[in-house]
Amino acid sequence: MRFATVETNNRLELAVQVNEKLISLSSLGYTYHDMNELIEMITDEDIKQIELCLSLNKGEILEDYQWRAPIIYPRQDIICLGQNYKDHAEESVRYKKDAFSENREAIYFSKRVNQAVGHNEYIESNPLFVHDLDYECELAVIIRKDCRCTEKKDVKNHIFGYTIINDFTARTIQTSHKQWYFGKSLDTFTAMGPVIVTADEFQWPLSLNLTTHVNGEMRQNGNTKNMIYDIEHIICELSLGMTLKTCSIIATGTPAGVGMGMEPASFLSPNDIVVCSIEKIGELCNVIK
Amino acid sequence: MRFATVETNNRLELAVQVNEKLISLSSLGYTYHDMNELIEMITDEDIKQIELCLSLNKGEILEDYQWRAPIIYPRQDIICLGQNYKDHAEESVRYKKDAFSENREAIYFSKRVNQAVGHNEYIESNPLFVHDLDYECELAVIIRKDCRCTEKKDVKNHIFGYTIINDFTARTIQTSHKQWYFGKSLDTFTAMGPVIVTADEFQWPLSLNLTTHVNGEMRQNGNTKNMIYDIEHIICELSLGMTLKTCSIIATGTPAGVGMGMEPASFLSPNDIVVCSIEKIGELCNVIK
Repeated sequence: MRFATVETNNRLELAVQVNEKLISLSSLGYTYHDMNELIEMITDEDIKQIELCLSLNKGEILEDYQWRAPIIYPRQDIICLGQNYKDHAEESVRYKKDAFSENREAIYFSKRVNQAVGHNEYIESNPLFVHDLDYECELAVIIRKDCRCTEKKDVKNHIFGYTIINDFTARTIQTSHKQWYFGKSLDTFTAMGPVIVTADEFQWPLSLNLTTHVNGEMRQNGNTKNMIYDIEHIICELSLGMTLKTCSIIATGTPAGVGMGMEPASFLSPNDIVVCSIEKIGELCNVIK
Repeated sequence: MRFATVETNNRLELAVQVNEKLISLSSLGYTYHDMNELIEMITDEDIKQIELCLSLNKGEILEDYQWRAPIIYPRQDIICLGQNYKDHAEESVRYKKDAFSENREAIYFSKRVNQAVGHNEYIESNPLFVHDLDYECELAVIIRKDCRCTEKKDVKNHIFGYTIINDFTARTIQTSHKQWYFGKSLDTFTAMGPVIVTADEFQWPLSLNLTTHVNGEMRQNGNTKNMIYDIEHIICELSLGMTLKTCSIIATGTPAGVGMGMEPASFLSPNDIVVCSIEKIGELCNVIK
């Protein structure tokens, strides 16, 4: 099932995407305060019932709406993986002059998200402060049930679904402050969407192509099967020490092809259009303001 | 004013501390869902009214209670400063073998806090996973009003108050994963309290002694005036790019004297008692389990 948050008639509405159409969830009798509450409350039986309703063509088709991030207000900062694709780890070292190429443990950091930006929404370039704005297309995992000391065989059962995150980054701020948090956490620097696709729609382990295009030019072209640390490893390892709560979001890293990896480096400017695509999820398009 | 969260008769209660006694806030007619809501809603006029009530000896004195963290569930991960006292920066370099001594920019990272631990509550040593548990006594700033592009002269007006945070850290996990997030974010690794003291009770700029004792032995002994980057700098700089929302918590770094800085390094074990004290705020005591 493909869940979305949209704005229509000046209010937020949760919806299900079917054949490119959005059906209002409340019109099917399912009402939640927001996507976080949906993730927490919805049962497998609810999902079956919704599927049944949809197969009978019930529900109101939304006609006039703007996309919003599926989870506009994450309950906690987003956990991110750094240098989790070998080709990106190599290009990063060139630019950052860090000795991270020999890293053998997963790199975890976080990204504050006051308000996630949705499909077709703007990213603030903040030109007085940010001089090298970059993109990173990532598969994001949404946790359904609290994880603590989770075993590999159980990881799948703790995942609600997947979405796309564009982890916008101010490169100089990221590196000059040593820890990456600040350069990743600026307002509007997390784009998410267009939908969350529930885990049952994917074959395990995941093997999904992901690409980024900037103004139509392909920049990133990877596959989630090439992660250095896969989703099972990440969730098992983190949950050894910390409870991953319901609605936690984990961005699993980006493949090669970001702007800092180009020769010469090439960063984003106002009016640039960035499109991140992940197979079976969709396209997340954002314009730099 | 000194605000606390305590548990009494199996429910949480907000209280005001006066002369070592705790007065129930709800008994004075002030009811909030939790400390976050109090910070968001309380006005200067409310505080004056509460002070008036207290001067008339109104309100119920709480007799049988356990301390809880003033903010048990932070709305967002805690923003932390790394190596923000020169003496601690020097001792850190010895242990971490990082080239951070020449750092000239503030180091910001974050710490996930699913549930903050209060005064007299336990810290999980997690011995199967954590082999070098360390303490860090820090002054924490609580934001009252959203900050974005805040000027130095206005910083004071955005601060609700201050508390003590013990930023417990698993040193090997902190360093082996390159970014510090994971080793700082384990369950129970944030102790906070005993109270939040409102900003009006402090002279500006702050000059507060802070100490840590482990099993009665003094380990840290610093003063907040020795921060490399002071609170004005931190809030102005962060707010250039990110909105610091109401109820944000910023832990401003720790002075020298942590376990990894000792020769030889000395870490915490079960039954150790760690007491962090900051002048005008109080003592935050935790036992390692």
